[in-house]
Amino acid sequence: MLGEIITQNRRLRPLIHCITNYVTANDCANILLACGGSAIMADDPDEVTEVTAMCGGLVLNMGTPNPRRLDALLRAGKEANRLGHPVILDPVGVGSSEMRRHAGRQILEQVRFAAIRANATEIAALVRGTAAHRGVDADPEKTLTNDDDENAKRLSQETGAVVIVTGDTDIVTDGKILYRVRNGHPMMKTVTGSGCQLSSLLGAYVTANPDRPLLAALTAVCAMGLCGEIAYERLTPLDGNASYRNYIIDAIYNLTPEALRKGAKYEAD
Amino acid sequence: MLGEIITQNRRLRPLIHCITNYVTANDCANILLACGGSAIMADDPDEVTEVTAMCGGLVLNMGTPNPRRLDALLRAGKEANRLGHPVILDPVGVGSSEMRRHAGRQILEQVRFAAIRANATEIAALVRGTAAHRGVDADPEKTLTNDDDENAKRLSQETGAVVIVTGDTDIVTDGKILYRVRNGHPMMKTVTGSGCQLSSLLGAYVTANPDRPLLAALTAVCAMGLCGEIAYERLTPLDGNASYRNYIIDAIYNLTPEALRKGAKYEAD
Amino acid sequence: MLGEIITQNRRLRPLIHCITNYVTANDCANILLACGGSAIMADDPDEVTEVTAMCGGLVLNMGTPNPRRLDALLRAGKEANRLGHPVILDPVGVGSSEMRRHAGRQILEQVRFAAIRANATEIAALVRGTAAHRGVDADPEKTLTNDDDENAKRLSQETGAVVIVTGDTDIVTDGKILYRVRNGHPMMKTVTGSGCQLSSLLGAYVTANPDRPLLAALTAVCAMGLCGEIAYERLTPLDGNASYRNYIIDAIYNLTPEALRKGAKYEAD
Repeated sequence: MLGEIITQNRRLRPLIHCITNYVTANDCANILLACGGSAIMADDPDEVTEVTAMCGGLVLNMGTPNPRRLDALLRAGKEANRLGHPVILDPVGVGSSEMRRHAGRQILEQVRFAAIRANATEIAALVRGTAAHRGVDADPEKTLTNDDDENAKRLSQETGAVVIVTGDTDIVTDGKILYRVRNGHPMMKTVTGSGCQLSSLLGAYVTANPDRPLLAALTAVCAMGLCGEIAYERLTPLDGNASYRNYIIDAIYNLTPEALRKGAKYEAD
Repeated sequence: MLGEIITQNRRLRPLIHCITNYVTANDCANILLACGGSAIMADDPDEVTEVTAMCGGLVLNMGTPNPRRLDALLRAGKEANRLGHPVILDPVGVGSSEMRRHAGRQILEQVRFAAIRANATEIAALVRGTAAHRGVDADPEKTLTNDDDENAKRLSQETGAVVIVTGDTDIVTDGKILYRVRNGHPMMKTVTGSGCQLSSLLGAYVTANPDRPLLAALTAVCAMGLCGEIAYERLTPLDGNASYRNYIIDAIYNLTPEALRKGAKYEAD
Repeated sequence: MLGEIITQNRRLRPLIHCITNYVTANDCANILLACGGSAIMADDPDEVTEVTAMCGGLVLNMGTPNPRRLDALLRAGKEANRLGHPVILDPVGVGSSEMRRHAGRQILEQVRFAAIRANATEIAALVRGTAAHRGVDADPEKTLTNDDDENAKRLSQETGAVVIVTGDTDIVTDGKILYRVRNGHPMMKTVTGSGCQLSSLLGAYVTANPDRPLLAALTAVCAMGLCGEIAYERLTPLDGNASYRNYIIDAIYNLTPEALRKGAKYEAD
């Protein structure tokens, strides 16, 4: 099953429009090439709808935001929805400023997502935001559940997106089924943008497998974690996080359906 | 001959002003350092003319465009022309949006280039654009020749620039002589920005050899392709496109005139 | 002493707000993770004060400036001052344009720095700028001393910041004591942003050791130089500046207090 997702992705070679932050843009482009897809990066409101239309899928990453790029996120997202292209959201640091909270609320109101990937704090911020928006709870603090599983399921049910929460273990849910993924290595936290990279990989796998977004998301999360493990085994005593960054992308490049089948560690809850 | 170009470049250590996209800017700076030059990156219209004036050459890359950076491209280009500095154009994705098509037409009208490097689709878009602008053909589709050689020669004749078309084989032409370069490896397509990197390298070689732009361009194309081959031979089974990216830049760092002389594969058409 | 600085930094794991250029942002984030800290990158004036407030320290890097990011530098710097967070300045190319000279004067007027790191040319430009501003000398050329030691001490005395001048040997001074650091390797000049990376490292060490900024700065300079030496020894004949870049960050990742104690080469003047 997981193997089919990556085989289909390598066959279709999806072209993904990424609107992303300038810190990790290069790694996002290279991981897309590693998995067999490719990227166009374009973030100006004056051209994003045309670029979206040329591509098969869209990844919206909220890192290093500014008003112009946030406008571009909305325009591209709406165009992708109109065209039926899968859209992935990576709400980087969405709770960190009023600008990002506002942008997070706006984008969930105006764009339908195939998948949303974030850490637990970001997911909680999104859930509070949607709740506040819908007037369910006047005090955003009170709407926050402490249970990440519940937040993920709720965000999925409210948005229709597959929700991926990354952390020590990862969660993948469509609001009904919830998978727990136990791949990965703690050292992945020492690589900047490993989350952004996963969101890009998600963009490719979901775009190549639009009828199976839950399985495509599960595959991306297992693949990224497994490649973190493979890369870790490759480290020499002199290697550190810079070499590790390269080895993870290298491992995505070399990942086979067989290796993924053997190495994926997940269970339905 | 080719060896002299890189020797001269290492002797003069040209400082290149790069206005470039944020996806590949780091790799462009590192490949310039690898070849013996160096880069200043500055992209705001309020300062680009001053930065251009400090440098020996200018590389204008149209990736991740926005109105402010496009204005900077024009201003810097005109200042470099005024000072007699070589200017290189990399019209990234010039056919992808009206914003880029317009910018492509404007920049060819207002700036004289020593060299233009692009893929065949981008060259065709530029040729259509210049043709349409000159009123040669009302229907841009009809002005498109399917012959990349002809497009390259025509763009060279119209602009006075050496034109480089990269693809499975590469073309280098000054509108009269046309070289075909057979260096390179298909895996180079899996490294984001390998074209941007070549354009930066061109910037250094042409700046250090301003009286021989055709030979300097041929040298850059052979050098980049040859380093793609050297880097490929260095790959271990665990390596992928991330390590390959590093190995290509490493190979430029270590490239000698002798190795280039032996490894360059080109012929005049 | 130096060992204590890095031990304390690894214990406290400071979160650093970096407003930095897009060329080296990824390396800056990865070197902060390598040393045991972490980074948030955010550069829009509408959100920087909130992001600064979430962090322990602030690094202001003036590379690839534009009016909006320069405004963000000032706002974030003032907020960090208000909160008592250490602020580091990296005045990239401050003498290169009127826009940067003006920004350099403004930022020294409005923000108090714990440390300023630059090369000798940039330090001289800042000293001229502050002098001109204070009306000490009508002709900026005449206020320039040729003695880098004196410039560094003077800038330190005028600003209250520890001043670090990087070059063939490095200077670290608080205006009274002046250390000379003899670590490092000439090949570090072939890695783009090695100065930016040092400024990020400074941000972490000073933030984790706010009562000892001189010692923290000396530690960062010795650590960066020593890791340049360690990385150089690791190079194989095929390696070049791209692998070297990775090896330096790897060495920071693996740096122990003992290795630093043994390898640091500095003397008080």
